Amino acid sequence: MKTGFNALFIPGPTNMPFRVRQAMDVALEDMRAPDFGDFTKPIFEDTKKVFRSETGQVFIFPGSGTGGWESAIANTLSPGDKVLMSRFGQFSHLWVDMCQRFGLDVQCIEVEWGKGVPLDAYEAALKADTRHEIKAVFACQNETATGVTSDIAGVRRALDAARHPALLMVDGVSSVGSIDMRMEEWGVDVCVSGSQKGFMLPTGLAIICVSQKALAMQSSARLPRTFFSWEDMSKLNADGYFPYTPATTLLRGLRASLDMIFEEGLDNVIARHHHLAEGVRRGVLDGWKLDLCARGPEWYSDTVSAILVPEEADARQVIARAYERYNLSLGTGLAKVMGRVFRIGHLGWLNEVMVAQALAGAEMAMRDCGIMVEPGSGVGAATEYWRTATGNTMAQAAE
Amino acid sequence: MKTGFNALFIPGPTNMPFRVRQAMDVALEDMRAPDFGDFTKPIFEDTKKVFRSETGQVFIFPGSGTGGWESAIANTLSPGDKVLMSRFGQFSHLWVDMCQRFGLDVQCIEVEWGKGVPLDAYEAALKADTRHEIKAVFACQNETATGVTSDIAGVRRALDAARHPALLMVDGVSSVGSIDMRMEEWGVDVCVSGSQKGFMLPTGLAIICVSQKALAMQSSARLPRTFFSWEDMSKLNADGYFPYTPATTLLRGLRASLDMIFEEGLDNVIARHHHLAEGVRRGVLDGWKLDLCARGPEWYSDTVSAILVPEEADARQVIARAYERYNLSLGTGLAKVMGRVFRIGHLGWLNEVMVAQALAGAEMAMRDCGIMVEPGSGVGAATEYWRTATGNTMAQAAE
Amino acid sequence: MKTGFNALFIPGPTNMPFRVRQAMDVALEDMRAPDFGDFTKPIFEDTKKVFRSETGQVFIFPGSGTGGWESAIANTLSPGDKVLMSRFGQFSHLWVDMCQRFGLDVQCIEVEWGKGVPLDAYEAALKADTRHEIKAVFACQNETATGVTSDIAGVRRALDAARHPALLMVDGVSSVGSIDMRMEEWGVDVCVSGSQKGFMLPTGLAIICVSQKALAMQSSARLPRTFFSWEDMSKLNADGYFPYTPATTLLRGLRASLDMIFEEGLDNVIARHHHLAEGVRRGVLDGWKLDLCARGPEWYSDTVSAILVPEEADARQVIARAYERYNLSLGTGLAKVMGRVFRIGHLGWLNEVMVAQALAGAEMAMRDCGIMVEPGSGVGAATEYWRTATGNTMAQAAE
Amino acid sequence: MKTGFNALFIPGPTNMPFRVRQAMDVALEDMRAPDFGDFTKPIFEDTKKVFRSETGQVFIFPGSGTGGWESAIANTLSPGDKVLMSRFGQFSHLWVDMCQRFGLDVQCIEVEWGKGVPLDAYEAALKADTRHEIKAVFACQNETATGVTSDIAGVRRALDAARHPALLMVDGVSSVGSIDMRMEEWGVDVCVSGSQKGFMLPTGLAIICVSQKALAMQSSARLPRTFFSWEDMSKLNADGYFPYTPATTLLRGLRASLDMIFEEGLDNVIARHHHLAEGVRRGVLDGWKLDLCARGPEWYSDTVSAILVPEEADARQVIARAYERYNLSLGTGLAKVMGRVFRIGHLGWLNEVMVAQALAGAEMAMRDCGIMVEPGSGVGAATEYWRTATGNTMAQAAE
Repeated sequence: MKTGFNALFIPGPTNMPFRVRQAMDVALEDMRAPDFGDFTKPIFEDTKKVFRSETGQVFIFPGSGTGGWESAIANTLSPGDKVLMSRFGQFSHLWVDMCQRFGLDVQCIEVEWGKGVPLDAYEAALKADTRHEIKAVFACQNETATGVTSDIAGVRRALDAARHPALLMVDGVSSVGSIDMRMEEWGVDVCVSGSQKGFMLPTGLAIICVSQKALAMQSSARLPRTFFSWEDMSKLNADGYFPYTPATTLLRGLRASLDMIFEEGLDNVIARHHHLAEGVRRGVLDGWKLDLCARGPEWYSDTVSAILVPEEADARQVIARAYERYNLSLGTGLAKVMGRVFRIGHLGWLNEVMVAQALAGAEMAMRDCGIMVEPGSGVGAATEYWRTATGNTMAQAAE
Repeated sequence: MKTGFNALFIPGPTNMPFRVRQAMDVALEDMRAPDFGDFTKPIFEDTKKVFRSETGQVFIFPGSGTGGWESAIANTLSPGDKVLMSRFGQFSHLWVDMCQRFGLDVQCIEVEWGKGVPLDAYEAALKADTRHEIKAVFACQNETATGVTSDIAGVRRALDAARHPALLMVDGVSSVGSIDMRMEEWGVDVCVSGSQKGFMLPTGLAIICVSQKALAMQSSARLPRTFFSWEDMSKLNADGYFPYTPATTLLRGLRASLDMIFEEGLDNVIARHHHLAEGVRRGVLDGWKLDLCARGPEWYSDTVSAILVPEEADARQVIARAYERYNLSLGTGLAKVMGRVFRIGHLGWLNEVMVAQALAGAEMAMRDCGIMVEPGSGVGAATEYWRTATGNTMAQAAE
Repeated sequence: MKTGFNALFIPGPTNMPFRVRQAMDVALEDMRAPDFGDFTKPIFEDTKKVFRSETGQVFIFPGSGTGGWESAIANTLSPGDKVLMSRFGQFSHLWVDMCQRFGLDVQCIEVEWGKGVPLDAYEAALKADTRHEIKAVFACQNETATGVTSDIAGVRRALDAARHPALLMVDGVSSVGSIDMRMEEWGVDVCVSGSQKGFMLPTGLAIICVSQKALAMQSSARLPRTFFSWEDMSKLNADGYFPYTPATTLLRGLRASLDMIFEEGLDNVIARHHHLAEGVRRGVLDGWKLDLCARGPEWYSDTVSAILVPEEADARQVIARAYERYNLSLGTGLAKVMGRVFRIGHLGWLNEVMVAQALAGAEMAMRDCGIMVEPGSGVGAATEYWRTATGNTMAQAAE
Repeated sequence: MKTGFNALFIPGPTNMPFRVRQAMDVALEDMRAPDFGDFTKPIFEDTKKVFRSETGQVFIFPGSGTGGWESAIANTLSPGDKVLMSRFGQFSHLWVDMCQRFGLDVQCIEVEWGKGVPLDAYEAALKADTRHEIKAVFACQNETATGVTSDIAGVRRALDAARHPALLMVDGVSSVGSIDMRMEEWGVDVCVSGSQKGFMLPTGLAIICVSQKALAMQSSARLPRTFFSWEDMSKLNADGYFPYTPATTLLRGLRASLDMIFEEGLDNVIARHHHLAEGVRRGVLDGWKLDLCARGPEWYSDTVSAILVPEEADARQVIARAYERYNLSLGTGLAKVMGRVFRIGHLGWLNEVMVAQALAGAEMAMRDCGIMVEPGSGVGAATEYWRTATGNTMAQAAE
C-alpha cells in the first residue's frame, strides 16, 4: 500500500491548486440559464490574456490538446494544402502525423532530438517557396518529450524575412501559462493549449487562441468539421453559450485558475517557472553531474527537464522504482529516447520545497538502480540556487 | 441573490450524486503509471454492460455526445456514402446536419415533432434500396427536444425485414443508463452517449459502444480522423492507456457512477426512471390538464417530458420565471417548439420527493404567468401515483 | 438502496450550502502561523453581528450547543447560585438538568409544552426576589422540540420591570441567524448557539456571544472550567489564536457562511425564514387540516414546525415511512411529545421549492400510514402562499 | 502571494489524506436516523483497536485533546483528590494546570525539558504513598513540545512494583495511531487523544479510551460534568446515538481514517513513523550536525523532532523565514524552549519524499538565517538512511 501523497512530477497533468479543485466541486448547472453568459464571457476575455493576444479569439472545446491541434487544422486548411513542419520529439511527431492523416502535403524538417525548431531551415524553405504554396508553418513551442523550448519569435522573423503570408500555427500545450507566449507581438495565428498544463486543471479542455487572419481562413478551408468547428462556436459563444453542452465544471475551474494567474501576475508565474526550472537544472548538472536531453541552454525548457541517464543504465527502471518505492511520478522517455531519459515536470502550482521532492526522490531511485549520484547533491545544488538567486519573484513576495 | 440549491430539472446535466462528486475531488494523476490500466480496463468492461453489449467495444473520448456522433461517422463511412435518417426534433436534426457536413448523401425522412423514428418508412426505404447503397441507418432513441422515445428494436426489425446489411447507428445520449438499450439483442452497431445524462457525471466524455461489424468498417472508411479515431484508441486501450491524456477525474467519477448503477441494478435504474416519469405525466395530464409534446403514450420518454403550454401562453416566460423567482431550472423549447413547451428532465440521481420540486415549482411559475393550473394538482396527482404504483422498485427497496 | 439525495428536514443539521462545503474542503493548516490571526479576527467581529451585539464578545469552542450552555454557566456562576428557568420542551429541560448537575439552585417554572417562556411568572418571580438571590434568568428562545419561539425582549422587560440585576442567559441554538436575536437591544448577557443550525455548518462549534456584564462575572464565578474557559480564550483570541488547537476547517466554513449571510442581508435571511415557515404552516393548517404543537400564532417558530398527528395515529410511523420509503428525514417527537408530533425543520439554506419536498413527502408518508390528508393539499396551500405573499424578499430579489 | 501547497510539518494537524477529505465532503445528515447506529457502532469498536484496548470503551466528543483531558478528570475524580504528575514540556504542564484548576491535589515532579516521565521518581512516590492517597498517576506519552516519548509500560511497572491501585491516565494526543499504545497490555486506564494527529483528521474530536476500572470510578467521582460526561454518552452510544448532536462529518472522516490505518496495518503505520522519524534524525544529527532537544535516543519521539539551533541563533527567525519565504510550516518552540528549537512534525499521512520537503526547506531557511548547515546534507543523510534501512515496511510494500 502506497502511503502519503503521490508526488506528481510528470509534465502535466500538474499539481492542481486546492482552490481550483474546490471551484470544480460544484453541482451541475444549466448551460442555457439566462445568466450563464455572465459567467462564461469574461472567461474568454481573460483566457486571451494568458496568450497575450489582443485581437484574437479564444475557443474552448471539451477535448485535449490533440483536439486543439485538429481544430487548428480543420478550420483553416483544405486537403492537399502544403504545410511546413519540423520533428524533434514525440509531440512534434504526432502533429506531423495528424496533418498527414488529414491529407495535407507536409514538408517536414527532421531535427536532432534535443534541439527545436530549425529557424534557418525554416527561413530557407519559406524563401524557396516563392509561389507561396505553403499555407501554414507549424512550430512546437515546447517539446514535452525532450524538454526543449523553441524560439517562436524567431519563426516569425523567418516568415517576415521571407515575406511569406503563411499562417503561423504553434503547439503551446505545455508552454502557455508557464513559458512566455506573445501571440500578438509574434504574429502567431493559432496557438493550441490544453487544460492540464499551465492552466492547472484536469485534462478535458482544448484551449486555443486564433488570430483574425486565421479566422478568415474558415471560408475557404474545406476539411470537414463539426465538433471542433470555430464557426458553430463563434455563433453561440457571442452570447456566452455553446453549440453543445460545455464542460461546466472545468469552466468553473478555469475561472479559478485564471484568477490565480492574474493574482500572482502572469509575468511572475513565468518568472517562477524559470526560477524553479533553473534550480532543477543546477541539481541535475552541478549536483548529479548528469546531462540533459536538451542540447544547450538555448533549448532548455522551463516546464520540463529530460535527464539523460548514464549509457549503461535504463531510465525506465528509475521511473518504475520512483513510483513503486517512493510514490514519485516521473515522466518517462517516449519513442526514440525511451530508456535514455526520465523527465521531471516542473510546471503548474509549484514552489521550491515541492520541487525538492522530485530531486530527493529521483536521487534515491537512481541510487537504488545503481546510478550513484552523491546523496543530497541534487537537492543541495537546487536549494542553494533557489536561496540565492537574485531578482526572483518568490523571494520578492516574501520580503 | 438566489437562495437554496438550484433545482436542476433540465434533461442533462443531471443531479450528480455526491458519491460521484467525491470521487472526482482528487489530485491529478499520471496517466502512464504502471498501475493505471488496473483502474481503466475494468471501466471499459463495465461501461459495456450499461449498453448491454457483449461482443462490442467501448470508447471513451474527452468530448461530448456531439463528438461521439462524429466518431461514429468518421470511423465507419466515406465521403458520398448514403445514409438513412429521420428528423423530428433538434437533436435528430443536428445529426443530419453533421452527416451532411461530412459529405454524406443523407436520405432524411421528415417526421412530425412529437413522434419518433418512422418504422414503416424506414422499412420501405430499406426494401427499396435493393443495391444496398445505404451504408448506415441512423436512429435517435430519445429525442431530448420533444420528449419522444423511439423503438430501436423496431428499427432492427425493419432492417431484418428488408434483409439489409446497413449499420444501425443510434443516438443514445439521453437514454443510455436510463431507458433500456440492448445493443446485442437489437443488433445496434454504434450507440453514442455522453457523460452528463444517465451516467450522472459532468459533461466532458463522449461514451460510445461499437459492434465488431462497425469496427470492421474502419479499414474502408475514408473520412479523416485522429482525435476521434477508434484505431488509435484501441491500440492503447488494450493495456488501459490512451493515445493522448485522458480526462482522469471524469474516469474516476465514471467508476463511481458505474458502481452505483450496478449496486442499484441496471433494471432497477430503468424501472425507477419509468416510475418517476409516469408520476410527472400524471401530474401534467391529470393534475394540470395540459398536454405533452409527445403525440401518444407510445412515444413518451422516461427521461424528459416536454409540456405544451396553452396556445396564448409563452413557455419561455414560465422557464424564466421558474429560474429567476424559484431557482428552478426547466428545459427550454428548442427550434420549432420554442415558446410552445417547457421541459422537465427526470433522469439521473432522482427520487420522488426530488421530482416533486419540479412540479411544485413549475406550478408556481405557470400561475405567476397566468396559466392557472390548480394549486397542488400536479404534485397531488404525481405523489398519489408514486405512492400507490404497484411493483415499483423504490417501494420494494423500502419494504 | 436509497436513491437520490436525502431530503433533510430535521431542525438542524441543515442543508449546508455548497459554498460552505467547498470552503471546508481544504488542507489542514498551522493554527500558529503568523498570518492566522488575519483570518480569525474578522470572524469574531462578523459573528457578533449575527447576534446583533455591539459591546459583547464572541467565543467559538470546538463542541456543540450543549458545550455552549456549559460555558455560559461555568464562567459566570458558583455552586449554589440561584437561577430562574422554565421548562416546556426537551431542550429547555436539558438546560435545567445541566444547571442542577452543576449544583445550582434552580427555580424552574413548568409550562405546558406548546407554549414558551412565561413572562408574567418570570416577572412575578423576579419581583418576589427582593434580595436578588437570583443570579441569572434563563430563556430558551426557540424550543426545537415543540416548534415554539419565546419573546426574549419580553424577558428583558420582565427583568426591567422588577429592576432585577440578574444575568439574562438565552439558548439561541436553533434561532440565531434565522430568527431575530438582538443582544444589545434586549440586554441579553449570554446567547448560546451552535454551528449546525442558522450558521449552516456541520456540528462541531459552540458559538456564544457574551456581554461585558457577563464577562465581569468571571472573577467571582467559582465553577471549574478549562476547556470552556472564557479567560483562556480571551487571552489568545486577542491576537487571533486559541489556547488549544481550533477546528480550522469549521472556521473556514464559518467564514463562508458569514459571507453568505451578509451578502443576502441578515434581515433578509430572517424574513426568508418567516416566509418559508408561514408557507409550511399554511400547508399544515389550511391544506392538511392538522394542528401544530405550538399553542397559538404567538408561539410559532420560524425554524421548525411540530405537527400533531391525529390521536389514533403514531407520528413515529410517519417519520419512519418518510425515511425508509421516500428518503425524507423529518424530526421526531422527543420525550413527552414522542409519537404525537413529527417535525419539519425549515431553517438554513432553503428556498420554497426545496421546502415543498418536505410537504410532498410528508403527505405521501402520512397517507401511507392512514392519515388521509388530501393529496397535494399541503403543497398547494404552501405554494399559493409563497407565490402571492407580498413583501417577501425572495420575490423582491427575483424582480 | 504564496505559491504551491503549504508544506505542513507541524506536529498536528497533519497532512490529511485526500480519502479522508473526500469522506467528509458530504451533505449533513440526521443523527437520529434509524440506520445511524449501523454507521457509528463499528466506529467505536474500530477506534478501540487503535488504542489496543480490548475491554475498554471509546468515547468521541466534539472537542479537542484538551477536552479529552477534562473528560478524563471530571468523570473519575473528586475535588481534593491527590494525583501524581510530572512536568517536562508545555503539554505536560497544561495538564498539571488543569488538574489544579479542578481543585485536585497535584504532586508534580519537575523534570528537565528534553527528558520524560521519571520512572524511578514515580516508583518512589508510589511506594511512599502507603495509604494510597494518590488516586491517579498521569503520564504524557509524547511531549509534543520537546519531541520526547516516555515509557508508559515503565509507568505500569512502577505502579505494579508499588502494588498501587491508582488509575493510570495517559496523554496520547500526539502518539496514538503513530507510536505504540498498548492500553490492555500496559494497564492504561484512560488514554486521551484527538482527531488531528495520528487519526489524520481535522481538529474537532476528543477521542478517548477508558478501562472498566476507570468507568467504575464514575459513581464516586464528584467533579461536575455534562458535556464531557461518560454516563450520558454511554447510555446513547449503546444504540449508536449521542446525547447531543455529534460531529457527523468528522465521524465520516474517522471511518475513512480507520479504514486506511487497518488497510496499511497498525503495526506498519507505527513502523513507518519510526522509519520516517529516524531519517529526520539522521538529517539533523549526521547531516546538519545539530542537536535534538530530546536528551538521548531513549527519549526520541517518532512523531516530532525538536531541533536545537546554535546558541547565537533564534529559532523563531528560522520558522518565520520557512513560512514566509518557502511556504513551509514548522513547529515553534513553546514556553521554555521558545527561540531555542524549531520542530518538524513527522506524523500522519507521510512518506519519505514528503518528509524530504521539511529538511530541504528548513535547510534553506536556516542558511538564510545564518545557520550554515551544508546544503543538501540533511536531505542526503535522510534519504540515504531511508533508501538502505532494512526491514522497513515501505520498502517491503514496494517489492
